[in-house]
Amino acid sequence: MSDRSDLLMLRDKLRAFAEARDWDQFHSPKNLSMALMVEVAELMEHFQWLTEAQTGNLDAGKKAVVAEELADILLYLVRLADKLDVDLKQAALHKLGKNAVKYPAEQVRGSAKKYSEY
Amino acid sequence: MSDRSDLLMLRDKLRAFAEARDWDQFHSPKNLSMALMVEVAELMEHFQWLTEAQTGNLDAGKKAVVAEELADILLYLVRLADKLDVDLKQAALHKLGKNAVKYPAEQVRGSAKKYSEY
Amino acid sequence: MSDRSDLLMLRDKLRAFAEARDWDQFHSPKNLSMALMVEVAELMEHFQWLTEAQTGNLDAGKKAVVAEELADILLYLVRLADKLDVDLKQAALHKLGKNAVKYPAEQVRGSAKKYSEY
Amino acid sequence: MSDRSDLLMLRDKLRAFAEARDWDQFHSPKNLSMALMVEVAELMEHFQWLTEAQTGNLDAGKKAVVAEELADILLYLVRLADKLDVDLKQAALHKLGKNAVKYPAEQVRGSAKKYSEY
Repeated sequence: MSDRSDLLMLRDKLRAFAEARDWDQFHSPKNLSMALMVEVAELMEHFQWLTEAQTGNLDAGKKAVVAEELADILLYLVRLADKLDVDLKQAALHKLGKNAVKYPAEQVRGSAKKYSEY
Repeated sequence: MSDRSDLLMLRDKLRAFAEARDWDQFHSPKNLSMALMVEVAELMEHFQWLTEAQTGNLDAGKKAVVAEELADILLYLVRLADKLDVDLKQAALHKLGKNAVKYPAEQVRGSAKKYSEY
Repeated sequence: MSDRSDLLMLRDKLRAFAEARDWDQFHSPKNLSMALMVEVAELMEHFQWLTEAQTGNLDAGKKAVVAEELADILLYLVRLADKLDVDLKQAALHKLGKNAVKYPAEQVRGSAKKYSEY
Repeated sequence: MSDRSDLLMLRDKLRAFAEARDWDQFHSPKNLSMALMVEVAELMEHFQWLTEAQTGNLDAGKKAVVAEELADILLYLVRLADKLDVDLKQAALHKLGKNAVKYPAEQVRGSAKKYSEY
């Protein structure tokens, strides 16, 4: 059943949502990538004038607003992956495996230097 | 067990990944929102000169590259939600409920006008 | 005099604006890059569900709104360049020269392939 | 003459550049807004793991790289404004005037709170 996987469950709900509204016609990957970007910017707007420490210590009201922005990002991401026929979970696990090779723990510990600089 | 939820499974793997590398110190929500944004831009770069139709019909090589960008986005999103102590799945379901009220199917069918214009 | 150069004129006005408000303390390049990004996203939001053709044919009301977004982007860009002590005009002319070498007209005519693919 | 205005001079050079390459066909405002966003993200990538203080104190090598990103941003912005038939200088001056009213110096001094919060 769909509740085995959060991501598939959300994918299915978003499919039904778009279908009920005949919005599939607007959901080209190009357009969805723009919508995704706009949502990330709305999140970032909350952080732009805060210090790093402040962003790690939001009050409850701000946190609720930020949670909604995170939701928007996830929803567009899931929808975009669906339209591209990409299995997000498999893609994420595959990438985690690549990252583990690219950034060996003993070599990069405590450093945020980009991979290419090693 | 963690495999009940994709998102919690990824959250746990990312926690371990950051801990093994002592990267937690760089993972302020502010910084992670920037990293998330950069990944979305890397995705978008693949689409910027393509038509909408072309982005819906990528060849296998391009699709593999794009899948990896989607993975990067999901990984940073999950990590960011964790640092903000936000339950992504609950947030997404909550937002879906709000969207259903905001965009009644019978009223918005076939139109991409923004909610505020109704 | 400053009015020989649009960019220097704007730089000076923005310096005075920030100084009068004691905002310099918030204007780290990191923060300004985030603010710049947010403004670009506000622009992009106007285009995300439009076709390419529609974005080239905005009505007067939409055009006025979009012009204001472009202004916000330019203002943050000029401010950011100032804080980084970069001469925007010189940098732009230098980059134009590099682009002319990187994309020889006779070789790339009519193609939007990225430089790296040649 | 064109050298009265940096922005018009760059606009004219970019027109000639696109025309020589037959790139006008790709330069819809929609596409250019995406390209602009990608350039801002490339800039931001340099800052994402740095502290605010570090971004205000780049070494010469980093500064040269960052200057080139700023140039890319300006070039796409000027091109986009041209395709939208917007006079960037006038738009910027107009917006500065509005900002002066929106953020009265005596009222906002030393605070980065957003206008809407006043």
